[in-house]
Amino acid sequence: MTENKLKELLEGVYARKISPEEALNQIKKLSYEELGFAKIDHHRALRQGFPEVIFGPGKTKDQILTICRRLYAAGSTVLVTRTTEEVFQAICAELPSAQFNPLARTIVIPAGEIPPTGGKVTVLSAGTADLPVAEEAAVTAEVMGNEVERIYDVGVAGLHRLLDQMDKVREADVIIVVAGMEGALASVVAGMVSQPVIAVPTSVGYGASFGGLAALLTMLNSCAIGVGVVNIDNGFGAAALATAITRRKR
Amino acid sequence: MTENKLKELLEGVYARKISPEEALNQIKKLSYEELGFAKIDHHRALRQGFPEVIFGPGKTKDQILTICRRLYAAGSTVLVTRTTEEVFQAICAELPSAQFNPLARTIVIPAGEIPPTGGKVTVLSAGTADLPVAEEAAVTAEVMGNEVERIYDVGVAGLHRLLDQMDKVREADVIIVVAGMEGALASVVAGMVSQPVIAVPTSVGYGASFGGLAALLTMLNSCAIGVGVVNIDNGFGAAALATAITRRKR
Amino acid sequence: MTENKLKELLEGVYARKISPEEALNQIKKLSYEELGFAKIDHHRALRQGFPEVIFGPGKTKDQILTICRRLYAAGSTVLVTRTTEEVFQAICAELPSAQFNPLARTIVIPAGEIPPTGGKVTVLSAGTADLPVAEEAAVTAEVMGNEVERIYDVGVAGLHRLLDQMDKVREADVIIVVAGMEGALASVVAGMVSQPVIAVPTSVGYGASFGGLAALLTMLNSCAIGVGVVNIDNGFGAAALATAITRRKR
Amino acid sequence: MTENKLKELLEGVYARKISPEEALNQIKKLSYEELGFAKIDHHRALRQGFPEVIFGPGKTKDQILTICRRLYAAGSTVLVTRTTEEVFQAICAELPSAQFNPLARTIVIPAGEIPPTGGKVTVLSAGTADLPVAEEAAVTAEVMGNEVERIYDVGVAGLHRLLDQMDKVREADVIIVVAGMEGALASVVAGMVSQPVIAVPTSVGYGASFGGLAALLTMLNSCAIGVGVVNIDNGFGAAALATAITRRKR
Amino acid sequence: MTENKLKELLEGVYARKISPEEALNQIKKLSYEELGFAKIDHHRALRQGFPEVIFGPGKTKDQILTICRRLYAAGSTVLVTRTTEEVFQAICAELPSAQFNPLARTIVIPAGEIPPTGGKVTVLSAGTADLPVAEEAAVTAEVMGNEVERIYDVGVAGLHRLLDQMDKVREADVIIVVAGMEGALASVVAGMVSQPVIAVPTSVGYGASFGGLAALLTMLNSCAIGVGVVNIDNGFGAAALATAITRRKR
Amino acid sequence: MTENKLKELLEGVYARKISPEEALNQIKKLSYEELGFAKIDHHRALRQGFPEVIFGPGKTKDQILTICRRLYAAGSTVLVTRTTEEVFQAICAELPSAQFNPLARTIVIPAGEIPPTGGKVTVLSAGTADLPVAEEAAVTAEVMGNEVERIYDVGVAGLHRLLDQMDKVREADVIIVVAGMEGALASVVAGMVSQPVIAVPTSVGYGASFGGLAALLTMLNSCAIGVGVVNIDNGFGAAALATAITRRKR
Amino acid sequence: MTENKLKELLEGVYARKISPEEALNQIKKLSYEELGFAKIDHHRALRQGFPEVIFGPGKTKDQILTICRRLYAAGSTVLVTRTTEEVFQAICAELPSAQFNPLARTIVIPAGEIPPTGGKVTVLSAGTADLPVAEEAAVTAEVMGNEVERIYDVGVAGLHRLLDQMDKVREADVIIVVAGMEGALASVVAGMVSQPVIAVPTSVGYGASFGGLAALLTMLNSCAIGVGVVNIDNGFGAAALATAITRRKR
Amino acid sequence: MTENKLKELLEGVYARKISPEEALNQIKKLSYEELGFAKIDHHRALRQGFPEVIFGPGKTKDQILTICRRLYAAGSTVLVTRTTEEVFQAICAELPSAQFNPLARTIVIPAGEIPPTGGKVTVLSAGTADLPVAEEAAVTAEVMGNEVERIYDVGVAGLHRLLDQMDKVREADVIIVVAGMEGALASVVAGMVSQPVIAVPTSVGYGASFGGLAALLTMLNSCAIGVGVVNIDNGFGAAALATAITRRKR
Repeated sequence: MTENKLKELLEGVYARKISPEEALNQIKKLSYEELGFAKIDHHRALRQGFPEVIFGPGKTKDQILTICRRLYAAGSTVLVTRTTEEVFQAICAELPSAQFNPLARTIVIPAGEIPPTGGKVTVLSAGTADLPVAEEAAVTAEVMGNEVERIYDVGVAGLHRLLDQMDKVREADVIIVVAGMEGALASVVAGMVSQPVIAVPTSVGYGASFGGLAALLTMLNSCAIGVGVVNIDNGFGAAALATAITRRKR
Repeated sequence: MTENKLKELLEGVYARKISPEEALNQIKKLSYEELGFAKIDHHRALRQGFPEVIFGPGKTKDQILTICRRLYAAGSTVLVTRTTEEVFQAICAELPSAQFNPLARTIVIPAGEIPPTGGKVTVLSAGTADLPVAEEAAVTAEVMGNEVERIYDVGVAGLHRLLDQMDKVREADVIIVVAGMEGALASVVAGMVSQPVIAVPTSVGYGASFGGLAALLTMLNSCAIGVGVVNIDNGFGAAALATAITRRKR
Repeated sequence: MTENKLKELLEGVYARKISPEEALNQIKKLSYEELGFAKIDHHRALRQGFPEVIFGPGKTKDQILTICRRLYAAGSTVLVTRTTEEVFQAICAELPSAQFNPLARTIVIPAGEIPPTGGKVTVLSAGTADLPVAEEAAVTAEVMGNEVERIYDVGVAGLHRLLDQMDKVREADVIIVVAGMEGALASVVAGMVSQPVIAVPTSVGYGASFGGLAALLTMLNSCAIGVGVVNIDNGFGAAALATAITRRKR
Repeated sequence: MTENKLKELLEGVYARKISPEEALNQIKKLSYEELGFAKIDHHRALRQGFPEVIFGPGKTKDQILTICRRLYAAGSTVLVTRTTEEVFQAICAELPSAQFNPLARTIVIPAGEIPPTGGKVTVLSAGTADLPVAEEAAVTAEVMGNEVERIYDVGVAGLHRLLDQMDKVREADVIIVVAGMEGALASVVAGMVSQPVIAVPTSVGYGASFGGLAALLTMLNSCAIGVGVVNIDNGFGAAALATAITRRKR
Repeated sequence: MTENKLKELLEGVYARKISPEEALNQIKKLSYEELGFAKIDHHRALRQGFPEVIFGPGKTKDQILTICRRLYAAGSTVLVTRTTEEVFQAICAELPSAQFNPLARTIVIPAGEIPPTGGKVTVLSAGTADLPVAEEAAVTAEVMGNEVERIYDVGVAGLHRLLDQMDKVREADVIIVVAGMEGALASVVAGMVSQPVIAVPTSVGYGASFGGLAALLTMLNSCAIGVGVVNIDNGFGAAALATAITRRKR
Repeated sequence: MTENKLKELLEGVYARKISPEEALNQIKKLSYEELGFAKIDHHRALRQGFPEVIFGPGKTKDQILTICRRLYAAGSTVLVTRTTEEVFQAICAELPSAQFNPLARTIVIPAGEIPPTGGKVTVLSAGTADLPVAEEAAVTAEVMGNEVERIYDVGVAGLHRLLDQMDKVREADVIIVVAGMEGALASVVAGMVSQPVIAVPTSVGYGASFGGLAALLTMLNSCAIGVGVVNIDNGFGAAALATAITRRKR
Repeated sequence: MTENKLKELLEGVYARKISPEEALNQIKKLSYEELGFAKIDHHRALRQGFPEVIFGPGKTKDQILTICRRLYAAGSTVLVTRTTEEVFQAICAELPSAQFNPLARTIVIPAGEIPPTGGKVTVLSAGTADLPVAEEAAVTAEVMGNEVERIYDVGVAGLHRLLDQMDKVREADVIIVVAGMEGALASVVAGMVSQPVIAVPTSVGYGASFGGLAALLTMLNSCAIGVGVVNIDNGFGAAALATAITRRKR
Repeated sequence: MTENKLKELLEGVYARKISPEEALNQIKKLSYEELGFAKIDHHRALRQGFPEVIFGPGKTKDQILTICRRLYAAGSTVLVTRTTEEVFQAICAELPSAQFNPLARTIVIPAGEIPPTGGKVTVLSAGTADLPVAEEAAVTAEVMGNEVERIYDVGVAGLHRLLDQMDKVREADVIIVVAGMEGALASVVAGMVSQPVIAVPTSVGYGASFGGLAALLTMLNSCAIGVGVVNIDNGFGAAALATAITRRKR
């Protein structure tokens, strides 16, 4: 249930087109829906500004399809993350407006309801191998109503590539920095801007990167200020935090 | 050098009261100042919205005093973190407007220049032992121009204490959650609000808390969205990130 | 050898239907049985209230079948955990009363001997991906004689889903909380009840969850009281501990 | 507020000696008390069967004294853990019934209100250096209404010392096993009993014990069933869980 | 080059059947042999009492075959560990006396030269899943000239199974204890015997066993004396150490 | 852009064959090239003495081919590391001078431009399984203009094999030591030479080698002096550092 | 109770000088002695060849004194490890034959009962800072009846110092190698001898030695055979294992 | 024994002023000197280009003094690292030319024998708290014959401070980068130069810096090439490696 839907309902009550009892029922019924294996949280958009998002891993194709169907029926834009082409085919057969982004591994089923935040989110990535995480962030930020700028492959090994882009970077409201290996890009960017920087360590690397731990620790220990860190490879979470910030702007 | 100072200088040039050469000199000279053991970064306020902050550990009393003196002379509000009563006595003898907060372990020397962000930062803490970190965050957020609300001792072991305060929590622009032990407070709060949540794990705990690692991992793995994490015990960093967000609002 | 079987034997001796020598032999022979690759512990039910359970991984299909055959022949209810459809087919061909639960990955061959504990075990899970572990706990608790209630998908990101169920939760004798990612559910539940809470971290998550380590540390550091933790993904162990508690009730 | 106190209040309302408004006020006021630095949770006894316990580390002597005073005034038995002789002197000056156990590092101020659980908790320890943790568990279990048996220095390096005591061990309702170094005692005991075993790893050891990590991992990986683990050195938590179990028996 | 071979050579010189120059050449040539990708260490038997052993992983089938051929040609008994059926087929085609043990994953090509140590090595294992490591130890100990006794599936969860075998265990010169999960068996055995105990942690387990780390730490922290630990799953290394001990006996 | 190319351009300007504007354009355009998914850093050879190297993992075959094509077109020798036969086939079809080294997993497309450093790099490896990393180092060092000597299979378990080669080792300008398992070779070699030693831990090993962590820590803690460590399995990085050193010699 | 004492008792029974009842009583009473805080294990010498040893840390001066008194009274040689001058003064006042070794931090109270093992234990140490651990091993090995040779400061950074001593090293029955930092000495020695090598990692080092973890992992991953590892800094344990081996020799 | 000393000796033999026997004796005797607790390695200067350096921790004042005396007597420049004012006083009383650097915590006793390497080593540090490690590197590099440039407080949080110094940085033969916290400085510098970069992580930081682990991992995972890493806080080791490189230049 989005804020708009609730407002509509309350105005209906005010206009005496809907009885209080019926309104109560609708609100209650829409609060969450029991699927047995899951409880869809229809009030999440009200509480958090965006409907429940479906995290793909650990769910069967049928479970994902069922949740999509219910969320879509409730009028929500649907976002599935870390999913596959195969899941997309299944969803698409039933909900043909679904869109798949193979690099970001996301499915989006638009419902036209997410209002623009008016904010601009810029996504920087350090290397080519960080792209899937960067794209997950970019797609999520777009679907949540942000203008998104992508600036990729600007790792600190070739600092001039980054310095060339800093004017563009400074136009952002929030900057998402996606980097694996040693993850130094977040500190370097944060030292040059006054915007909030959301740092996403990636599992890109080998040996002593220990699956992204090196980049994670780098980002947590940043000597530059204004950096908040999310989980390794969590492009979605970075975009969600960015949106919580850009919505503030209104 | 703050944005105001630079504006003043440029207006002086425009009004032909200052020659371009002199202006150039002043800007250059103010960029950073070489102290031998340190290079004071006078442009940081321009780049990042707040002057360089002095992190106490690893610096001698004399080094801290020298940096305070220069920053203060340059017209900046001075903030020293993780410091001691003894350092305060030394600073106070020379700069009597200095203020010491023994719980937060901070020294502030106000210069009246930080403009209000217009934002409200609410600091929640889980337990009594988390107070030093929470107060460091609160003092920093205040000195950076935010309205600050403190809500302490609302850990999840007594959830009703938190639920009672949620209306007040929702008035914030940014929420800082300070918690040690298992650090679950960040997830629980983030699940109930739409504002950005900055999570600060603390080293409070024993045994398998491993110096704050348990709370850190909890916060990084939060199942709720809109959470950015800073380093263990980093109350200052949380407030700096919060300010980067509240300044966005203007 | 269950307590009932031993009692029967001793009553036979008392009634002079069985000679002491024969009784001794039967007890000795039933103590454990040498299979070469394994020693079946037939006295475990006597010592611990439930026959030896077969942990599937690292055993061949033939080894599992052989142990099932012997345990079943000794009159025990058989439980195989972490097993597969393929192993089930092999067992079913010989012991057709075997039942397979694909979600829990368990095989049960009932022997009708486990007396009810009279206790109620409630299994909570945080997310859909935690279901296999939650079901392993639920199936084990049932086969060990408990009444079992399942309450799934009540993670702290949508706290109202949990609060709605708390009345039902409070009816339990023991509560098993199954959660991955940050594992905060255990603390939140334990803070609201007076029953013992058995916390099962799961390996669900990614990045800094480090295969369940994050949830494990969260649960060990719980600020709420009354929480005992078992190994990551150890649904079986949680149910066995729960049964040790519910049997106490009698 | 204990269950007895609430019952009294409600019976007063039923008997029309207390007005509903006044009862409401008393319940609300007693829910938690704001001390500025802490919120005393007066309803914890209602929710969890024992009043809030004061964990000493990270609190000043004055903070501890203030909380003791309020809890005692509210009619609760007070327990302070991980405290010192010095704190005890301060409390004793004001509340002379306070008792100090230097080995367990606990202060108890009895209020005569904790009803017996009717259960027996047996505390085993592996070595002499584990005694402070074992005593913390024993004192807590006693003050929470259990009969307590102490069996100390029965580590697995001299198995006959343990085997000699097994008959006594089997009389317990719940067994707490306290062990550092390799922590093998928990598995060995759990393999011989049917009662729930609460395992407390201690930080006793050196080198690769890594502050109790070795014992913690041993206990979590126990091949014997019926074992729940609490945090390293958490004698208090073990006793609280034991009490949650023994209260079940009634 | 074994000690016998060298003795023969020197006796040939003494008897003037071999010239000193030729003897020198043979000794030198036999010291190590350059294969390009490897240098076969033909003197290892002289220095360490057993020829170089071929550790399978990371070597191609052809590389293993080449090394086998040279070692065999030099008169050494050949042992290949952690190998596969497929490698065996290739070796067997050329060296038909080769023997494969699928459980231990070893190939042995006997050369009849290893003299008996006169010692007895007893291999204990905790569970069925530990068998491959236990068998690797047993096969290695046999091929190195020891009498070997296997006692399997005597984990501490059923202590009576172990106690039953202790008389047999005490007949050993060296005891190898192979255990995964919590690895407590090593401490328990070492507490009951005076022989040296070689502890082999295995990677058997899940969750917080962290690939054998839990068992490894348990064994290193053993409170019983007389325990030496080898690497996780290193059955071969345990047997080699055992042989270094039993050879001492002569 | 290599140093030679830039020199040519500037001489063209000096000789008035190229206008300053055109020269500026060429330098700028050649600085880096935007491919969308990557920014090729054409100035790297100028800054670091060798063109950008293509790290294979995480890049598609098409991405690698595109980058090869551009680098080759810009006149650079191309090096692809951690690649496969399949990628080689694709490149070879278009750029037939490409060479594949299956052991090192490298592709080299020579452009004849790398001047000899005049230095000699000697690569030592401890065991046969370390060869892929050692070969990656050797191939990289060759393609960067060094004379390369390979000395393989000289691990410390057979010290005489190493001592035999020490005269040859001492002829090197830089020594690269590649070792997995316990990685002791680096310390032993560094204790006997005065040249800089670059230590490359490998992930060869099992159990407590923890993917190369054991060798990494060994090398970082070397008691011998003159040792610099690179990431686990980073043969390429070792050779690049060696080349930075040998180029110094000129 | 030592083997000799028991033999004497049994011969007394055989000779009818002691009644069976009295013998039984004496054996039972001497099995272990209850001190309240500890259970002295008087049968340990029988089971393990040496009386219980007192590990100092975590025990009060009075507790240590009490245990010494009882062990001494029972006729055992007493060994206290990791103790202090202060404890020694207290013991010496009562048991003047006590000897303190300040480097090894040991107290020995000889009782003249430990028979020589006939074996020779050689203790090697890598650096000067490893001496306390090396001396703890040497003192323990002496008091347990071994001939002990000390060869100190032979770390691999100066290999010639070690090679010079190898002839002496090869005379040992068992070799104990004590090394911190990277711990490579164990592998190097083990590669040159056929005796069992007991490796003792020490916590000597800094930074990435992580309190001895680096040396521990090095020793566990040794590529040389015949190495058994004990806990970090566990000189006592190494000597006890060495003695278990040398006693075998008889 | 330095190279010069040896040359002198051999020339004496050639000139028939010294008999071969005497020369042999002197070389042998000077090889290493037995102090009981240590073996001074007088040949290290021959093998490694600089005499043995005394690492202070874990050695008594007397031990350090003894080693200084012998090294000085042998004509070597003496360097003591990680030492104290107190040790300096003791040395100075006997060897008055000793110099103490309190920031670097080093003592130098010059002997005028170290020839200049002709190389220039530039030491960069990120923050004020990194100075002790940076100074240890600088003092060591000077005493080993290098020209040393210090550029301090150029951390990436204020990138302009670093960029301003890059021309000076590029004049170095070897660059040592000393940085704690996130350690990003090493990658940023290495991306801009072609010289070898020696990265020294420091333990400066808190929380998730884990005693320097964060900076260490950052440096090992550097995306820029030409970086070799030494142990945490190992300023000495960095300078020794730098000297191994600059000596190459000759």
